[in-house]
Amino acid sequence: MFRKISDEIMLRGTCYDNLRVLCKTVGNRISGSPQAAKAVTWGQHTMRATGADNVYLQPADVPYWYRGKEQLQLKIGKKYKQVPALSLGNSQGTNGKTLKAPIIMVHNFDEFKALPESAVKGKIVFFDYRFRQDIIFTFEAYGDAVKYRANGASVAVEKGAVGVIIRSMSTGKDDFPHTGGMHYKDSSKKIPEMAIGNATADLLEKECAHSIVMAKMRSECHMMPDAVHSYNVIGEIKGTETPERIITIGGHLDSWDVGEGATDDGAGCVQSMEVIRAFKALGLRPKCTIRAVLFMNEENGDKGGEAYADSAKSKHEDHVLAIETDAGGFSPRGIGLEMNEDRKRQITGYKDLFLPYGVYDFSREEGGTDIDPIHKMLKVPAAGLMPDCQRYFDVHHTDNDVFENVNHRELKLGAVVLAQLIYVVSEHGLY
Amino acid sequence: MFRKISDEIMLRGTCYDNLRVLCKTVGNRISGSPQAAKAVTWGQHTMRATGADNVYLQPADVPYWYRGKEQLQLKIGKKYKQVPALSLGNSQGTNGKTLKAPIIMVHNFDEFKALPESAVKGKIVFFDYRFRQDIIFTFEAYGDAVKYRANGASVAVEKGAVGVIIRSMSTGKDDFPHTGGMHYKDSSKKIPEMAIGNATADLLEKECAHSIVMAKMRSECHMMPDAVHSYNVIGEIKGTETPERIITIGGHLDSWDVGEGATDDGAGCVQSMEVIRAFKALGLRPKCTIRAVLFMNEENGDKGGEAYADSAKSKHEDHVLAIETDAGGFSPRGIGLEMNEDRKRQITGYKDLFLPYGVYDFSREEGGTDIDPIHKMLKVPAAGLMPDCQRYFDVHHTDNDVFENVNHRELKLGAVVLAQLIYVVSEHGLY
Repeated sequence: MFRKISDEIMLRGTCYDNLRVLCKTVGNRISGSPQAAKAVTWGQHTMRATGADNVYLQPADVPYWYRGKEQLQLKIGKKYKQVPALSLGNSQGTNGKTLKAPIIMVHNFDEFKALPESAVKGKIVFFDYRFRQDIIFTFEAYGDAVKYRANGASVAVEKGAVGVIIRSMSTGKDDFPHTGGMHYKDSSKKIPEMAIGNATADLLEKECAHSIVMAKMRSECHMMPDAVHSYNVIGEIKGTETPERIITIGGHLDSWDVGEGATDDGAGCVQSMEVIRAFKALGLRPKCTIRAVLFMNEENGDKGGEAYADSAKSKHEDHVLAIETDAGGFSPRGIGLEMNEDRKRQITGYKDLFLPYGVYDFSREEGGTDIDPIHKMLKVPAAGLMPDCQRYFDVHHTDNDVFENVNHRELKLGAVVLAQLIYVVSEHGLY
Repeated sequence: MFRKISDEIMLRGTCYDNLRVLCKTVGNRISGSPQAAKAVTWGQHTMRATGADNVYLQPADVPYWYRGKEQLQLKIGKKYKQVPALSLGNSQGTNGKTLKAPIIMVHNFDEFKALPESAVKGKIVFFDYRFRQDIIFTFEAYGDAVKYRANGASVAVEKGAVGVIIRSMSTGKDDFPHTGGMHYKDSSKKIPEMAIGNATADLLEKECAHSIVMAKMRSECHMMPDAVHSYNVIGEIKGTETPERIITIGGHLDSWDVGEGATDDGAGCVQSMEVIRAFKALGLRPKCTIRAVLFMNEENGDKGGEAYADSAKSKHEDHVLAIETDAGGFSPRGIGLEMNEDRKRQITGYKDLFLPYGVYDFSREEGGTDIDPIHKMLKVPAAGLMPDCQRYFDVHHTDNDVFENVNHRELKLGAVVLAQLIYVVSEHGLY
């Protein structure tokens, strides 16, 4: 059956073509935006085409962060020069006014702590922390670096900084800036924060080492005052023996407002739908109900994930397993498991079945942001597809996260593994 | 030490930059061509920059197949339309004249065998055999399909065909034709053979199903009458304890005359040199001699590999292990082993050391074409780096095999694993 599932998806899978449509006709789709609404319509339509028994929308009110125009200029030599930069998600910009200030560079929070307030006051702090290319599992390196993006502004403002620039959380040998979520402490003044790409950061690092670099920052970004009605898109195959028992597989439909949201996480959306399509095409009638969910608002609020958990709770749903695919459409290598040891052992016991499909690593505790609420709130066992991670942070949250950077075989192979996992769990349960 | 090797290469590796130079200043480099000579000079220069104890050239006379101009036109509807096509390597073209003939399509050799001679005589045979996308290990699918490229012309001519068109050995969802080696039986008349990309093959398949499609083929390709003097490029670190015992690591410097030969096999060349650079940068003094070899003429003759084995034999060299990296600069997954069971067991015993670097599969018998002569002639144990194989046959032997399709982290990680393997074998020997 593993082989049948694989053949069906590798030979007749539609996920790659679906991803092309999402990327090229909808494009990027930040929560609350008109594009996100368009993506919901696309999701509904595409989910129906899989042959799902029923397709419906699940309401979730989401925040809407709006970027608008933005510009960062650095005075390198005698002239100001515009450099590629992106305001960070959820940040408050300069209200369209120019913020002109000298830059002070630090390499990490410890260096920042050692600075007197007088050295920071009135300045733009440049957190020049490098993404650790020596860490082979890049998600670990991301976890190490992301605090500068998430907390940089809140930390810097405490000593009177007027703005923040960060080196992107990027493995890229290029100059793409990477956006991504940040947040302010409730008590903090909201100062603007922008990310620059590695090449610009290298240049700025060099300049800051021997002189005071001036910057002009201008941006319009802000959080919209009101939440926007939005939706998770859900498609189901009803279980034949225990329809009340549910296996959820999902990715997230929203993306940041750059690129095409292909790897993050168009890939996960089309893979989740591919599972439904493959089961239907093969005439597989699973014992449990299989539910594919395109979650809304993973990037800056997780309102879709919360709405899903809330609904499951209020309906007293019985979830056997929740699976997320949000680590890119790359060749699968492992399945992360967040569950008790007995269940881990059971799934790890299927290892030899997965090996011909390149999956050998069951050792990590990785689920996903969208399924975290249901995992935490209802103690549902969680799993996450773990593809090869070397390329993920080259494209993550950038204008370079486009359809062309997803490979059709790798994308399909991920869907194969997801469908296989769901098949064994549906057949044998999870105890 | 595994960690130190990894850090050195992931943080300070030069292989990616070296590959850029090879691809962008030399480009593709078929054996015998002026570009291949330029590549030898680049290889010598780049090998010296690694800090190798000595760098030298090893002579190998190679064939020189010259493409020249070529064109394939298909009459689809009322007009002839030029389609992307590549003559196959080593083939004899139409001497610049137009060969006009109807096409007869078969899907495989069995269908061809069933045809009467009258159905084939005077026609161009279209071998429409599909690369099997259902086979997960793509090199196996390549092995399955490549006989149509290698033998198509010899088979077709026996029933009086005047030319051959093949569907490319390609996983690509595109229209890049893939070139590659073919050969004629000594007794055969040499008819021209061209490859078309998957999209054109799909179109031609549809047309041939209901009508007779005419083709015009014109090409100038031919094998040059004389062999050309060329070279393997070799760099060494002398062993401290047993310098007479040699571990060889190599890729091939020649490529087909399309694209930039980035994946096939610029990647292997720069990885092999990276091993030397990393050992030198870390001040590692290996017990055995380590020899990096950029082999010439892997693609259509293996004269470099033969010259290497001949030299080793005549000098009575003692080779502990020969390793090849010619499967692309993708994330490593395994190490293929061609050696006796005891030695396999020994290397497989290091599995847990390799696991953090993504290497888990030691089960395949895979060495490499360049090291095959020394493996067969002198019984030297052989190993091959096995990276993820999903993308390899998208770019293999096409104009799309360019630097941009190699990822810097994946390329480096392959070099890490090679250096680690060489380190353990140099330290502990191979019994």
